[in-house]
Amino acid sequence: VTRDDILAAAGRLAGVAVRTPLVESDGLNAVAGRRVLVKAECLQRTGSFKFRGAWNALSRRPAGAGVLAVSSGNHAQGVALAARLQGRAAVIVMPADAPAVKIDGTRALGAEVILYDRRHEDRDAIGLKVAADRGLHLVRPFDDPDVIAGQGTTGLEIAAQAAESGVRAADVVVCCGGGGLSAGIALALEGTGLRVRTAEPAGHDDMARSLAAGLPLPNIDPPPTICDAIMTPAPGRLTFPVLRRLAGPGLVAPDGAVRAAMALAFRHLRLVAEPGGAAALACALALPGDAPVICTISGGNVDPAIFTDCLRDA
Amino acid sequence: VTRDDILAAAGRLAGVAVRTPLVESDGLNAVAGRRVLVKAECLQRTGSFKFRGAWNALSRRPAGAGVLAVSSGNHAQGVALAARLQGRAAVIVMPADAPAVKIDGTRALGAEVILYDRRHEDRDAIGLKVAADRGLHLVRPFDDPDVIAGQGTTGLEIAAQAAESGVRAADVVVCCGGGGLSAGIALALEGTGLRVRTAEPAGHDDMARSLAAGLPLPNIDPPPTICDAIMTPAPGRLTFPVLRRLAGPGLVAPDGAVRAAMALAFRHLRLVAEPGGAAALACALALPGDAPVICTISGGNVDPAIFTDCLRDA
Repeated sequence: VTRDDILAAAGRLAGVAVRTPLVESDGLNAVAGRRVLVKAECLQRTGSFKFRGAWNALSRRPAGAGVLAVSSGNHAQGVALAARLQGRAAVIVMPADAPAVKIDGTRALGAEVILYDRRHEDRDAIGLKVAADRGLHLVRPFDDPDVIAGQGTTGLEIAAQAAESGVRAADVVVCCGGGGLSAGIALALEGTGLRVRTAEPAGHDDMARSLAAGLPLPNIDPPPTICDAIMTPAPGRLTFPVLRRLAGPGLVAPDGAVRAAMALAFRHLRLVAEPGGAAALACALALPGDAPVICTISGGNVDPAIFTDCLRDA
Repeated sequence: VTRDDILAAAGRLAGVAVRTPLVESDGLNAVAGRRVLVKAECLQRTGSFKFRGAWNALSRRPAGAGVLAVSSGNHAQGVALAARLQGRAAVIVMPADAPAVKIDGTRALGAEVILYDRRHEDRDAIGLKVAADRGLHLVRPFDDPDVIAGQGTTGLEIAAQAAESGVRAADVVVCCGGGGLSAGIALALEGTGLRVRTAEPAGHDDMARSLAAGLPLPNIDPPPTICDAIMTPAPGRLTFPVLRRLAGPGLVAPDGAVRAAMALAFRHLRLVAEPGGAAALACALALPGDAPVICTISGGNVDPAIFTDCLRDA
């Protein structure tokens, strides 16, 4: 994936994706003791940057071809909406015990949802079989060059908006599951004064440990976390080499810090984040120093009960 | 107040206030059965458009002069922040039983807070006396030409952003207390295809009844409402003639519709609104027809308990 691929993706996304604002709050800056500039991808279509990668990847598939994604989260909704807007059939493979709000939300976007039993069935095998049987194009959530290029458009916007805000050099803390968004942004920011730092939930810090070790390491027996959107077993095959080359040391947030970040986003930014979409803000707030810092925030289908819990804790 | 006053205010606010986005959501459009474009003033500094009017009004006061506002809400915070940024002293007169989050929030912005007893003291008399004793300039919340011109900058942005979104003609539903924002936006939109409709809480529909009658009528024995930010006894002296000339019939939302609007903003826009800042969305969603509609949304210090209630109800 090159910078030209990201520029081409930006052309495809113009007028379709939202150029989300880089927001800043006097109150949050006071809490943080520094400028905190937040790329508000919760204002993106479907509530997360996943729509960018999905739209770009689908744009590169043959006209009219149906697509398939294996996801219970934001990737599912990004692919479902992009497919509907492009007039394609979409099939989404989800665990039968996914939250009803996510299953319903994906169906509401016009996708066919195929449920599987998480305990007895292998989701990737089901996805490959259905895709083969029905001639659908599989769209992977992060290990796909077109998806990485699409997510990278977020980085082009960050660079322009940071400059408008007078910030030329800063860490850019990015929520990291498989690393599609982080790698895309890192490529978009290459050669600028802005440097990506990945943000992961505690115990799911495969990327941070891999960056430290210089080679990809999986999570071993990871603990539960509220950050379901960015729980991944290991760094991506395509994303890790990019981040090893371009990113700073990986950052990690315990669930408590993520809850506090969600409550601060509510209070000071008036933005609704999901836990996995607030990990970067949590890490940004824990970063030493008083230099400006940039971070991403996002939220697809946010569970009101979990959100309410976070407000109560704070 | 003329359009030139609003353009001059926009010049003063450039680089200081946020040019808030006009957001749109596939999910909310599906719920509404029409395009709903939402001017997200919850992303404004202090969380509401009040900062615009405060900044503009303070910019017109003598350099270094202290200012005073009588408000327990968003006007207080707008004046406090604008004063701090302009290096002025600010005194805010608030009822002693105002929510702690609002008192603390105003003090955190550097203002001196003077509390009064709502049952035994007259807030306006206190405000005038303190202002006279200490040589402070009183900044009224809506019946001030500079405040109306400042709020009107929201309308300039709406006109430009609606055109970018392909909307040339639409109702623009605006949360209405004293009518400063409504009147300012109406003046900014004069001569365009966009027409202001005021949105008030049920039982506090002084503006709607006044517009229908053609003369200003007060509320009589108004019921309780969760929309505390837009509870006003009667239309403004300066704002009513503007709205009588330029606005369509006034709209009214019961508290239940406001709660539902807050929950829909949470789910589909990922924005945090306060009740009084969600009244316009509630009215927009109840408007007959399927033509595009524009509305404002805002939220200063949102009470987490009330917010949680609204999510639970929905």
